[in-house]
Amino acid sequence: MPPVIAFLSRMSADYQRPYLDALRAALPGDIVAPLAELSTVQREQVSVAIVANPDPADVADLPGLLWIQSLWAGVESLVSTLPVGSPPIMRLIDPEMSRTMAEAVLAWTYYLQRDMPRYAKQQARHEWRQQAYRKPSQTGVGLLGLGELGQASAARLRDAGFSVRGWSRSPKALDGIETLAGDAGLEAMLAASDIVVSLIPLTAQTRGMLDVRRLNLMKPGAALINFSRGPVVVTDALIAALDRGHLSHAVLDVFDAEPLPVTSTLWDHPSVTVLPHISAPTDHETAAAVIAANLRNFRATGRIPGNVDLARGY
Amino acid sequence: MPPVIAFLSRMSADYQRPYLDALRAALPGDIVAPLAELSTVQREQVSVAIVANPDPADVADLPGLLWIQSLWAGVESLVSTLPVGSPPIMRLIDPEMSRTMAEAVLAWTYYLQRDMPRYAKQQARHEWRQQAYRKPSQTGVGLLGLGELGQASAARLRDAGFSVRGWSRSPKALDGIETLAGDAGLEAMLAASDIVVSLIPLTAQTRGMLDVRRLNLMKPGAALINFSRGPVVVTDALIAALDRGHLSHAVLDVFDAEPLPVTSTLWDHPSVTVLPHISAPTDHETAAAVIAANLRNFRATGRIPGNVDLARGY
Repeated sequence: MPPVIAFLSRMSADYQRPYLDALRAALPGDIVAPLAELSTVQREQVSVAIVANPDPADVADLPGLLWIQSLWAGVESLVSTLPVGSPPIMRLIDPEMSRTMAEAVLAWTYYLQRDMPRYAKQQARHEWRQQAYRKPSQTGVGLLGLGELGQASAARLRDAGFSVRGWSRSPKALDGIETLAGDAGLEAMLAASDIVVSLIPLTAQTRGMLDVRRLNLMKPGAALINFSRGPVVVTDALIAALDRGHLSHAVLDVFDAEPLPVTSTLWDHPSVTVLPHISAPTDHETAAAVIAANLRNFRATGRIPGNVDLARGY
Repeated sequence: MPPVIAFLSRMSADYQRPYLDALRAALPGDIVAPLAELSTVQREQVSVAIVANPDPADVADLPGLLWIQSLWAGVESLVSTLPVGSPPIMRLIDPEMSRTMAEAVLAWTYYLQRDMPRYAKQQARHEWRQQAYRKPSQTGVGLLGLGELGQASAARLRDAGFSVRGWSRSPKALDGIETLAGDAGLEAMLAASDIVVSLIPLTAQTRGMLDVRRLNLMKPGAALINFSRGPVVVTDALIAALDRGHLSHAVLDVFDAEPLPVTSTLWDHPSVTVLPHISAPTDHETAAAVIAANLRNFRATGRIPGNVDLARGY
């Protein structure tokens, strides 16, 4: 009898289909199906669930569940909604996602370094004016968070010649990148960077991390890119810093509520670029391959995997 | 008596000053001065002129001129305005300019590949919609012109994972890049590219190269970046191709007339990004160092240099 893998999400059917197709192709010997399509007997057989923003009640409905595979790299909502004593969680660590995120970080760093927002405003005014060119070596980029995505992005920026600093909760050493840690390190990084890029996971510690005080520590004229989670930044404080010209621009791909409500003032802010959470989309095929490898490894060794520290929050 | 180098340009004094400062710093044993500051005796001593869009009459006013150093890489106006029998020309070949241009090509290629123009339009409409992500490996970029700037840009795009084709008048071989030449090669490159980047010099042969017929050969939905010279592209044909949706976008840094007249319809075209000729600004210091090295080499060997083929036009 083939193993049964439950797929738990609140995605629309259209959005879910390519994920299911890719997972079924990567796991040809398994039954991969949404909970609603599983019989009571099948539900009792499920030892592994693949989840994307699942209903916690659905997770609780699988009595034999040994571990949970997240389809996303960010697991803050999963961690915060599952009850104590839930099975271990594997969040997605996909090298292709690291590549895509590093590409997005480089692309929107160029967007700012090359003054694209300013040239767009000049174009609207029919204004021909050459801004002073700032070389990458003269442009300090500070990365908030040095996990897989942060490390890949830091290396990409370093290879493009930017002056890169990286901050993480606990000290890390990276080739060719100045690394900082702790509160004092965070303040030093903010004060030294022309562009700050958030790739830090959302946890109780990082919620509201970029608040009025820390945004004020940033260099006058500096810019912010948020590619991690909206609540890491205090939106009102960011808007105030942009309005008084302390910060020059913000590129936001993530928000306190997504989709960003049509009534949000961020849409029309002249110093904000709004993106619809597209910096590093999950690649259906590579994600399915990573998940299939995790499953094969589990079956070969019998060891229950898990790479999420519930106390740490990611 | 120190050698006298004439500096011939029609730049404003403000714009000219940093070039003169950098040249004087790089040539501490020489007198480097605009023509107006030289006595008749000094003018007669001048064997080398450094020029940037000079008045041809000023060039003719230097009876002992042996060769001309252009401050720009593009010499089409110099070549077309100097009389037959003028001294040999060195156009600027500065590795720092190649680096800056390759960076600009990569930055605005990301701008298009990452759908930045489309997301800006969505933002203006408060529309949250994720466009399908297209990987660099699935994005064909075609480079028109494989001189120093084209080769540096092709290598940069290749290293970023793009599928790169390059076209040049005469066949060239480049590592990891499909190269094409001749009329048939040009048509093949245009038909295969999602993004076409012009880095080709303006000559009698390349004027109007991207005309109605060749723009029609481009892939439906493809985009154009022009970082070489405006007249390489037939502007009316480009606007027509954008208007009927055959092409999706154009990033234009160069124009038939510069500054782009305030009355140009390009400023307000929804599918055109207008840049004020900023893709690869001359770096005062590195340009001065290259020019000083050319002068030292000339003085050490006595050989008159020249890297511009007047018949070829660049």
